Amino acid sequence: MPHEQITLYTSKLCPYAQRTEIALAEAGAPFKRYEIDLGNKPEWYAPKVNPASKVPAIAYGGPDVPPENASPESTKLAESLILDEFIGDLYPSSGIVPADPVLRAKARFFIEIVSIKLNPNSTKFLHGNPEGTHAALLAGVDAIQDLLPEGVKYAVNDQYTIADIAFAPFWARLNLLVQKGIGSYKDEERKKFLKGLEDPKYAKFNGYVQRLLARESFKSTFDEDVVAEAFIGRFGLPN
Amino acid sequence: MPHEQITLYTSKLCPYAQRTEIALAEAGAPFKRYEIDLGNKPEWYAPKVNPASKVPAIAYGGPDVPPENASPESTKLAESLILDEFIGDLYPSSGIVPADPVLRAKARFFIEIVSIKLNPNSTKFLHGNPEGTHAALLAGVDAIQDLLPEGVKYAVNDQYTIADIAFAPFWARLNLLVQKGIGSYKDEERKKFLKGLEDPKYAKFNGYVQRLLARESFKSTFDEDVVAEAFIGRFGLPN
Repeated sequence: MPHEQITLYTSKLCPYAQRTEIALAEAGAPFKRYEIDLGNKPEWYAPKVNPASKVPAIAYGGPDVPPENASPESTKLAESLILDEFIGDLYPSSGIVPADPVLRAKARFFIEIVSIKLNPNSTKFLHGNPEGTHAALLAGVDAIQDLLPEGVKYAVNDQYTIADIAFAPFWARLNLLVQKGIGSYKDEERKKFLKGLEDPKYAKFNGYVQRLLARESFKSTFDEDVVAEAFIGRFGLPN
Repeated sequence: MPHEQITLYTSKLCPYAQRTEIALAEAGAPFKRYEIDLGNKPEWYAPKVNPASKVPAIAYGGPDVPPENASPESTKLAESLILDEFIGDLYPSSGIVPADPVLRAKARFFIEIVSIKLNPNSTKFLHGNPEGTHAALLAGVDAIQDLLPEGVKYAVNDQYTIADIAFAPFWARLNLLVQKGIGSYKDEERKKFLKGLEDPKYAKFNGYVQRLLARESFKSTFDEDVVAEAFIGRFGLPN
């Protein structure tokens, strides 16, 4: 299939946007990258690209124009999970959308569990919400570990897929902030979480997330210093 | 592709479950149907089929066994949208998952808008929540109408897809309850909603939902009397 141009509107800070950057890196897809300043979005962004004014968004096809001047002839697409599947559909050889229907369903179910069982607990924890305890966070880890098959590298098998792509940016940010002590949680909760995670019962999970963070497509799209600095701006310096 | 056995755990009452029944009807897929009594779920359902204890769920493959005695050898899958895509992947000739990546992305985005802009307003309206006004409900209708292309039959084009399947059961229930006056809303709000919907500016939307409710796969999976009776049980008789 001949590919049309892809312009990605993104932000280094945003885990949703990183999902799409990882998918593009896995596909080896050529694209124009445009960084949106989330604290000061350009006026043209909502009317010309994404009415919801969020990143990531893609302008696909149409004439070759500067990203600031997106053409009405390109198709505008949004929502990170939809974009990841779109990129996988455009580049089936990337393998990020498994060819087997059962594995596809399992990859999508893994994403659902990340979205409902880990990410909300992670947000509550980082913001020092009373329900955001180390125990709630570890319960999210349990839910994910339960889905991981034995003896494989990634979420559904040895193939790196949309499931891994959806999870990695969120785990990376939680891991970074907890390691560095950035966030509104109590330090005691932070220590209990880190200690809990060292339990040998989490060996499968820990091996998995280590592989996620070591993947080249993850590393090339994650700027730790920029992310840490932005979170310090939000939460203040670590104790 | 040779197909393995499909056992569907479902309920006539549940709009999520109806999504999967419509997808199976569109695919012409043979399957065993097992009705789960949502008010009195069988004890074996969570441990043997779906740990989340929700419908719909599918047991795919494995030996031919009675639904009450699901085999550990079958693959258990859940979540209505995932199941719809799964059925579309198993039966590509159904066309419910568009072959074109852009149309797939548009179908999935349509579902996202239904899920965030219409369904929550619909639930609030039916339950008489103060935010659940006719205006909020019509705003959801606006959001959906804005996505409908001009001059086509369904959500993304003339092909009936997962987008239409995801929306139809929810619209059908709202429509039924509002027509019959079942629900905790004020009658004045109900009348304003129905009157608002008659505005010629909603012609595109009204034509679309009329086609949705007339589709054979919808009609054969929607038992109006059973649904109405269950909602009367929840909300009481209409005024």
